[in-house]
Amino acid sequence: MSKIQNDSLQRIGWIGAGVMGASMAGHLRAAGHELYVYNRTRAKADTLIAAGAHWCDSPAEVAARVETLFTIVGYPDDVSAVYLGEDGVFAGAARKRNGANAGVAALKTVIDMTTSSPDLAREIAARATELNIAALDAPVSGGDVGAREARLAIMVGGDASAFAGSKPLFEILGANISHMGPAGAGQATKLANQILVAGNMIGACEALLYARRAGLDPGAVIDVIGKGAAGSWTINNLGPRIVAEDYAPGFFIEHFIKDMGLALQECERMRLELPGLQLVRDLYEALAKHGHARSGTQALYLGLAAMNGL
Amino acid sequence: MSKIQNDSLQRIGWIGAGVMGASMAGHLRAAGHELYVYNRTRAKADTLIAAGAHWCDSPAEVAARVETLFTIVGYPDDVSAVYLGEDGVFAGAARKRNGANAGVAALKTVIDMTTSSPDLAREIAARATELNIAALDAPVSGGDVGAREARLAIMVGGDASAFAGSKPLFEILGANISHMGPAGAGQATKLANQILVAGNMIGACEALLYARRAGLDPGAVIDVIGKGAAGSWTINNLGPRIVAEDYAPGFFIEHFIKDMGLALQECERMRLELPGLQLVRDLYEALAKHGHARSGTQALYLGLAAMNGL
Repeated sequence: MSKIQNDSLQRIGWIGAGVMGASMAGHLRAAGHELYVYNRTRAKADTLIAAGAHWCDSPAEVAARVETLFTIVGYPDDVSAVYLGEDGVFAGAARKRNGANAGVAALKTVIDMTTSSPDLAREIAARATELNIAALDAPVSGGDVGAREARLAIMVGGDASAFAGSKPLFEILGANISHMGPAGAGQATKLANQILVAGNMIGACEALLYARRAGLDPGAVIDVIGKGAAGSWTINNLGPRIVAEDYAPGFFIEHFIKDMGLALQECERMRLELPGLQLVRDLYEALAKHGHARSGTQALYLGLAAMNGL
Repeated sequence: MSKIQNDSLQRIGWIGAGVMGASMAGHLRAAGHELYVYNRTRAKADTLIAAGAHWCDSPAEVAARVETLFTIVGYPDDVSAVYLGEDGVFAGAARKRNGANAGVAALKTVIDMTTSSPDLAREIAARATELNIAALDAPVSGGDVGAREARLAIMVGGDASAFAGSKPLFEILGANISHMGPAGAGQATKLANQILVAGNMIGACEALLYARRAGLDPGAVIDVIGKGAAGSWTINNLGPRIVAEDYAPGFFIEHFIKDMGLALQECERMRLELPGLQLVRDLYEALAKHGHARSGTQALYLGLAAMNGL
């Protein structure tokens, strides 16, 4: 039974109040939507609750109280637990079908914004369909700054009409929103993005290490080579941090390893060998084992330097 | 003995009238400089001669007739022959010291714009110093289009005052002109540029191959991922060519293999291991052996596809 609401304002669920998720949910709240929040660690949702969001004790409870539900959690296992677990989103939606929370509009759309597995996105979409719920996979790029400034790129997979219906919400969160195909296509696009980053990153780190060993001023080298046919976001944005020996995380190495692992898993399933991606992942894993799991991805430079006794 | 000339116009030598060299020398001629040209294959200099350039029968003859001499040839061995050979630039300059071509200003500056070895650049500079000639190494990036439109990036190594004196000439050829340090520093910067390109290229090709295997529209994927933190000149400019199955050369694979080989040689000398560069060079060498030496560098995509039986 649908509750009549303001045309554009609705009850929205948000699961995952990490650095990215808290900023993103905050934008939806600021736009006037009624927000229902769950997070494994409750304290991280405090700011949202202070801004008027309602706390829920489980993903199931969120699911029973909203029409549209977003998730952005850590790893595919977390996504799986949130959606398919005993007290998960689909359990909550099914219970509601059986009578709980009458008078509240039923859950219509779930949107997972975690970078996760395309396969899992398809599994979630299939289960959602059984419950007459639309599922979108909608991972993002742009990092914490993009989340804060609502300038994320959002890559969406799933049903086209569900995408169209959710677009006004995406537009509150990001600036570059694309429907890439059926369920899983958003995740696959994000993995392609990460494969590209892996190549750009080793190129940038090796070029700067070579420049340093060759006695060049690496900042001057970036100024010259970053502008032409060798240019990349990585060399122009992370290059100067490497030169300044700033390895603070814009994006954690452990998360990048997760993403590259997902891509390699997909590759294995498709019997696709990508030697560059494999090499970069292996280098990052060695780096993580040496205490850099929570350094920024630009610390690949340190791994290459260490490998060379520098 | 110096011949008094128009303040800015001078006798300029140009050795190497390939696709790049012919365009570049043409700009100097169009700016009013008197041009003396040599090329291994004379026919390639025809357009320059038609525009008023003087033909010379050897590098030595060019050297004896000009104040400033540019070279842009193929491989380091060619550079070495042109400068240090029996009928080379330095032989010509030395003979002139001994009385030939009296009344013509002596050779003051030599500028090698070939992408070549930093070591060879230092060797040439040392030999030049003995003859009281300044030597600059000044490789470029920007390709045939950059040469034609005088928008090259020019990375210069060598004496700072020689650089300052030659800058007005560089400005006729390019748009982004940087003095990077002493002799060899221009070449080293260009090699750093190529190391960066190698990484960007494998990232772009692997991302697009993954996208294709995952059933995505690769053009749409480029539109999304090329704009954000994964963006690079390579994905945005060569990506669409790969999607269009256009492997025509902007830059020949055989030349890129040469450049990566130079970088790896330098690395070996400096005991620097760069696994990404090594991998990419090996992949390109396999590709060249399969008939792609004169395809464009974006054909790395085909090599990765073939490796995967696609």
